[in-house]
Amino acid sequence: MNKTEHFEKSLTLFERASKVIPCGIYGHVTPAATVPGAFPYFARRAEGCRYWDVDGHEYIDFLCAYGPNVLGYNHPHVEEAAARVQRDGNCLNHPTEWSVLLAEKLTALVDFAAWAVFGKNGSDMTTWAIQVAREHTGRRKILKVKGAYHGSHPWCTPGHGGILPEDRAHILEFSWNDPEDFTRALQEAGEDAAGVIISSFHHPIFGDSILPDPAFLKLIEESCHHRGIVFILDDVRSGFRLHLGGSHRHFGFEPDLICFCKALGNGHPISSALGREELRIAASRVFLTGSYWNSAAPMAASLAVLEILEKENTLEHMRRQGERLFEGLRSAAKKNGVKIRCSGPPALPFISFADETNFYRSQHFAAECILRGVFFHPHHNWFMCGAHHDRDLDHTLRAADEAFASVKKHFS
Amino acid sequence: MNKTEHFEKSLTLFERASKVIPCGIYGHVTPAATVPGAFPYFARRAEGCRYWDVDGHEYIDFLCAYGPNVLGYNHPHVEEAAARVQRDGNCLNHPTEWSVLLAEKLTALVDFAAWAVFGKNGSDMTTWAIQVAREHTGRRKILKVKGAYHGSHPWCTPGHGGILPEDRAHILEFSWNDPEDFTRALQEAGEDAAGVIISSFHHPIFGDSILPDPAFLKLIEESCHHRGIVFILDDVRSGFRLHLGGSHRHFGFEPDLICFCKALGNGHPISSALGREELRIAASRVFLTGSYWNSAAPMAASLAVLEILEKENTLEHMRRQGERLFEGLRSAAKKNGVKIRCSGPPALPFISFADETNFYRSQHFAAECILRGVFFHPHHNWFMCGAHHDRDLDHTLRAADEAFASVKKHFS
Repeated sequence: MNKTEHFEKSLTLFERASKVIPCGIYGHVTPAATVPGAFPYFARRAEGCRYWDVDGHEYIDFLCAYGPNVLGYNHPHVEEAAARVQRDGNCLNHPTEWSVLLAEKLTALVDFAAWAVFGKNGSDMTTWAIQVAREHTGRRKILKVKGAYHGSHPWCTPGHGGILPEDRAHILEFSWNDPEDFTRALQEAGEDAAGVIISSFHHPIFGDSILPDPAFLKLIEESCHHRGIVFILDDVRSGFRLHLGGSHRHFGFEPDLICFCKALGNGHPISSALGREELRIAASRVFLTGSYWNSAAPMAASLAVLEILEKENTLEHMRRQGERLFEGLRSAAKKNGVKIRCSGPPALPFISFADETNFYRSQHFAAECILRGVFFHPHHNWFMCGAHHDRDLDHTLRAADEAFASVKKHFS
Repeated sequence: MNKTEHFEKSLTLFERASKVIPCGIYGHVTPAATVPGAFPYFARRAEGCRYWDVDGHEYIDFLCAYGPNVLGYNHPHVEEAAARVQRDGNCLNHPTEWSVLLAEKLTALVDFAAWAVFGKNGSDMTTWAIQVAREHTGRRKILKVKGAYHGSHPWCTPGHGGILPEDRAHILEFSWNDPEDFTRALQEAGEDAAGVIISSFHHPIFGDSILPDPAFLKLIEESCHHRGIVFILDDVRSGFRLHLGGSHRHFGFEPDLICFCKALGNGHPISSALGREELRIAASRVFLTGSYWNSAAPMAASLAVLEILEKENTLEHMRRQGERLFEGLRSAAKKNGVKIRCSGPPALPFISFADETNFYRSQHFAAECILRGVFFHPHHNWFMCGAHHDRDLDHTLRAADEAFASVKKHFS
């Protein structure tokens, strides 16, 4: 394949982009994070579990826009709900009934939550959540897991540029699933511990996903409870893929505050944080706003999303199809004499190659798959959606079979 | 008027909201910032320069959703452009051609800019901008104007909750239009001055707007230039209302980095920062991303907005109608024996009552206007839009005449 021809329009656009945008493409969608040269750079359209790049290539998508696409791109009911409200007026001088309806719906779904607030991004909510923890406790220290992603704000960004030591002066880190290290961090925070923020499972970039050890979660939960520390669940990535009421229900623990984004709007821009009654006063004291945060259409979209997820039992569908994907990949790998590790819950699956630390096989595999119309990210956990049907998995597993054969051949 | 009946649906919704949302309504749209009881709490729909509350009352709107509505609510060309792209797919795995087109358009409009990035809120961009200033200079101090609003993030939020001294450890403040105070702050920052951030005119809440003294702007510009400090223009509020190329062009100065939001998308969620070539490397080093930041529909909306603003000379229309509003209000006030101060540029007008410090007259005036179908905020600068036509101003000035008469009577 001549890659320049194959991705001609992507490359031409990227050249134009590089002149007027730093790096051409930045952030989590940067081509540098996939396999430069092997992946398309620009998308054109999407439908269900498939998208098309600007050169017209079609892909079965296991990234789902890095999470938001939970029901399938352009789900007709969601789009109709949003468009109907958009026609009335979206961004107004006051909130609309939709914010009340959505807050009522979410507080009914999330067992411990008495209230909800809304934003536009995960970072909006995680940053506000640690402020609420500080306001509620009158303390300063926030404990987070090493290598966990909680957004792009200075206190938590994975980037190095423009950060001051003060931005993280009261952020302490501990290792995932390591009770001793958590206890050490907690002791270090002492009487000044305001909050602990975790995801429900660990999904570092460039690493296998790691499910939580129940004893580890119990230790965090009890420590927070006994010391009056606010226990924050960053459910931005897992929310509405593992349990409709928050992924703490899937893993059996109880946080005090939860942050949602991504799947909440099926691509319509919305995020939300919900908390316990005890945190309401602190929540009302931490200023929170943005130009479009009361916009009605994404809230109407969210209500449609939640209704469909419930009615169609999409979470069970994603779990089942994710398991089928895991099984199919395991068996295709075995057939080709390639050892893989499957990690993460089936609805957010990931694979890596056993005994590999440099990701060369992962990159080769992903590059071979994308050539065959299947988008697997080599370094970032994947996402299932409600539109991954059997025929999509059939095509996917045939592509994976050939890609594993190519890995075997290339690395022998 | 029985207010409970007049705003029955607003009040019922607010009661429901108060159960599931801290304060019921929070942020910049909180009823507490207007005149509690006199203003509607929830909006239902909007069209042109008018909106309707949930009780069916119609208002001529001089807040424009606090800025975003620059062309009129539901402008058909903007809505069509966004809907067409939304039908193809909005939030995808990669950026789309729209991000390149919009970056090309914006860098062509803004004279000093070589590149653009995109976000969802003003705060996303102002926070990133100060990080870029720090990364570029390797210094820490950011100078800002006392009482200026640059967003809701910890370093700049007007709120008090959940803030640590470290969040503002390297933020220095100086008084607007006060060269001596600026020089003092600059000396205090010394060799550690990374950036200066200002709006093009000062628009404090609970205060008159104050236009810039050209010598003050020149001093900031030259000081930044001589000391290699990054000069940031927060054009979130004024952008695309004073000059299509950034409001520095309107006032005659030259920043290094500019932040846009609000009017850029006519209500579609988008913000942008643009900077000089010299800042490109620093810009590429400060991690910047969010779940929906590459979404295509708001970018297509922005391109339509910019095209219409140019083609229809909407900025001149807003200036002219703002001047007509100022003149009409001055003359109606005079007729009724009430002294007012008009402040701000005509496209972002504001009035206050002379010799008043408690805002009682402002609140009474605004409450009387809203009763007559005209939304003037008592404490926050107003916004003109392209859909404020003569008949709207005629109605507005008749309402204002009666409201001034009521102020005169009530406060005599």
